[in-house]
Amino acid sequence: MRAVDLIRKKRDSGELTREEINFLVSGYTRGEIPDYQMAAWLMAVWIRGMNRSELAALTEAMLYSGEVLDHSEIPGKKVDKHSTGGIGDKTSLILAPIVAAGGLTVPMISGRGLGHTGGTLDKLEAIPGFNVNLSLGEFRRVLRECGMGLIGQTAEIAPADKKIYALRDATSTVENIGLICASIMSKKLAEGIDALVLDVKTGSGAFMKKEEDSVRLAEVMVETGKRMGKKVVALITDMDQPLGRMAGHSNEVAESIEVLKGRGPADLRDLSLDLAAWMFYLGERTKTVEEGRRLAETMIATGPAHRRPEFSRNEFHQWLRHRDQLRAVWHCARHAGWRPRKEGRQDRSRCRTRVSQAHR
Amino acid sequence: MRAVDLIRKKRDSGELTREEINFLVSGYTRGEIPDYQMAAWLMAVWIRGMNRSELAALTEAMLYSGEVLDHSEIPGKKVDKHSTGGIGDKTSLILAPIVAAGGLTVPMISGRGLGHTGGTLDKLEAIPGFNVNLSLGEFRRVLRECGMGLIGQTAEIAPADKKIYALRDATSTVENIGLICASIMSKKLAEGIDALVLDVKTGSGAFMKKEEDSVRLAEVMVETGKRMGKKVVALITDMDQPLGRMAGHSNEVAESIEVLKGRGPADLRDLSLDLAAWMFYLGERTKTVEEGRRLAETMIATGPAHRRPEFSRNEFHQWLRHRDQLRAVWHCARHAGWRPRKEGRQDRSRCRTRVSQAHR
Repeated sequence: MRAVDLIRKKRDSGELTREEINFLVSGYTRGEIPDYQMAAWLMAVWIRGMNRSELAALTEAMLYSGEVLDHSEIPGKKVDKHSTGGIGDKTSLILAPIVAAGGLTVPMISGRGLGHTGGTLDKLEAIPGFNVNLSLGEFRRVLRECGMGLIGQTAEIAPADKKIYALRDATSTVENIGLICASIMSKKLAEGIDALVLDVKTGSGAFMKKEEDSVRLAEVMVETGKRMGKKVVALITDMDQPLGRMAGHSNEVAESIEVLKGRGPADLRDLSLDLAAWMFYLGERTKTVEEGRRLAETMIATGPAHRRPEFSRNEFHQWLRHRDQLRAVWHCARHAGWRPRKEGRQDRSRCRTRVSQAHR
Repeated sequence: MRAVDLIRKKRDSGELTREEINFLVSGYTRGEIPDYQMAAWLMAVWIRGMNRSELAALTEAMLYSGEVLDHSEIPGKKVDKHSTGGIGDKTSLILAPIVAAGGLTVPMISGRGLGHTGGTLDKLEAIPGFNVNLSLGEFRRVLRECGMGLIGQTAEIAPADKKIYALRDATSTVENIGLICASIMSKKLAEGIDALVLDVKTGSGAFMKKEEDSVRLAEVMVETGKRMGKKVVALITDMDQPLGRMAGHSNEVAESIEVLKGRGPADLRDLSLDLAAWMFYLGERTKTVEEGRRLAETMIATGPAHRRPEFSRNEFHQWLRHRDQLRAVWHCARHAGWRPRKEGRQDRSRCRTRVSQAHR
């Protein structure tokens, strides 16, 4: 098998086999296939596309290019959420404590900012001293003790994705549904989760500007997850306006704390409850999504989401300890001329939520 | 200007400006744009194509990536021939002495074998001691003294083509009419010629299997040459069967000498006379192509093509001095079981010659 022949095959709109895709991905990860051959193949994939089997094979090859975590020693279901990102999208910071407080385990491996959107890691690092670079051993300890953990992509997790992503960024092969799906799903499935809730943003502030593109991306991600034996749902949610009233890493941390304390803007609170509801349902903590939503509301109303004592042993506790400091940052920002969006501009009727579902 | 934006533009079927193409080619030649970005761009070009202005800009950028020879100190017109190559295609070895003997200067910069076809350089190197690696200074001296010179591509001539060609070979972006045209024309126009005759092969033994592809390639090459102010014609010639009766480097040298001595197979002789006729005509040595053909026939019949005394001072003289040795190689080959094709299998009616013309 030669890379040059596989490039030609995709160039000529051919379908690559599982073995051929695995040859390319593993060869590239090991450094045996050079950047320029992978770049030519990625451009051919970008233009010619991949069918569902090729996409599943690519995701699988990228997933197994590194370590796939196994949390079977931790009792109960492990669930996660992934968002395609948008301005003010900070739900990870709200969901992890709610869902962990509700009894599930949330092993979140998050990313950096992408284009105009901030990443969860960047937001967490706005908290002085917050360490997102835990080893996999430390990550497991935090998960066991606190029911949740938020770290960055380690060298062990999907190294093929890390290398391919950097190359895509430099060769204008980013915005392709198949490649986006393989990148997201290979990382998320490496977390060792049982179920995944996807928040696919649509609108002028999202990567997918058109709803039909968001729906297509949602569908391929759900199908890819299903092929890998996971429960996956996707919610298509509005990103025609920022989520909540805060944008900017520190501000978003502060606003997340407000929501956890039962306050904060209605749109952010609503979406967080919706996502938490699906996480509880897919994680078999509740029998219905509605029951999941009620559980999430209880976690906020009765306080365990921000008062759970185990948080003090997690790096995450710093996030809560520093909330006064963060509020100070927020006030500084307001005095410097930053103005939160007026409530009146929040038009919830424009927020469409649609569910692509693929769980048993 | 950023390479990543120009890759995106071509990926999305946009038209690149002259400045943008020049930025890519010169940046790549200088090593400022990495292989992987050029590879992604080449794949986008392969799939999306280039229009005529982009092609002219690419040819020009590749041409001026290195030295463009100036033979104005040598009186008279400088002409060359380029063939897209095929089995048994050895006309360069015949044309150079005929056209030089007829009074024009032939500065030939030739290539190596490509795919299943042998290159002129490989054939010349079958002559013991023949040196194809002359410096540009030595090349000029040989041209001045003998009226012809045959060398390989030097580091000074179209370095962008040399680098891009190697990358295309490794990334399955070879067989594209625009890229083939830019590669051929940038090298040929760097020779400092006034006119160029193109022999575009078509048929099962050629790169272009289908006549319509050969015609398209011929047309874009003629138009590109015209845009650069050169006289160019293209002959579309048959490659459904080998040219002549000899294939293999040494054998082809031997057969070329036969033609120069007024013998050799009819198809090779005919095509050589046709090409020489156009070279004499474009080089303004004769008023018509027919007169050019008669001049070529005279050069063979009266002997100057293989007896011109200046040849003894050219590296090329070795070619003629060694003809007995070469004939020995040929006889050896025959005794080893090789059989020349029977005359009866030569069906000249299958040989189509079509002329794409673009001279003033």
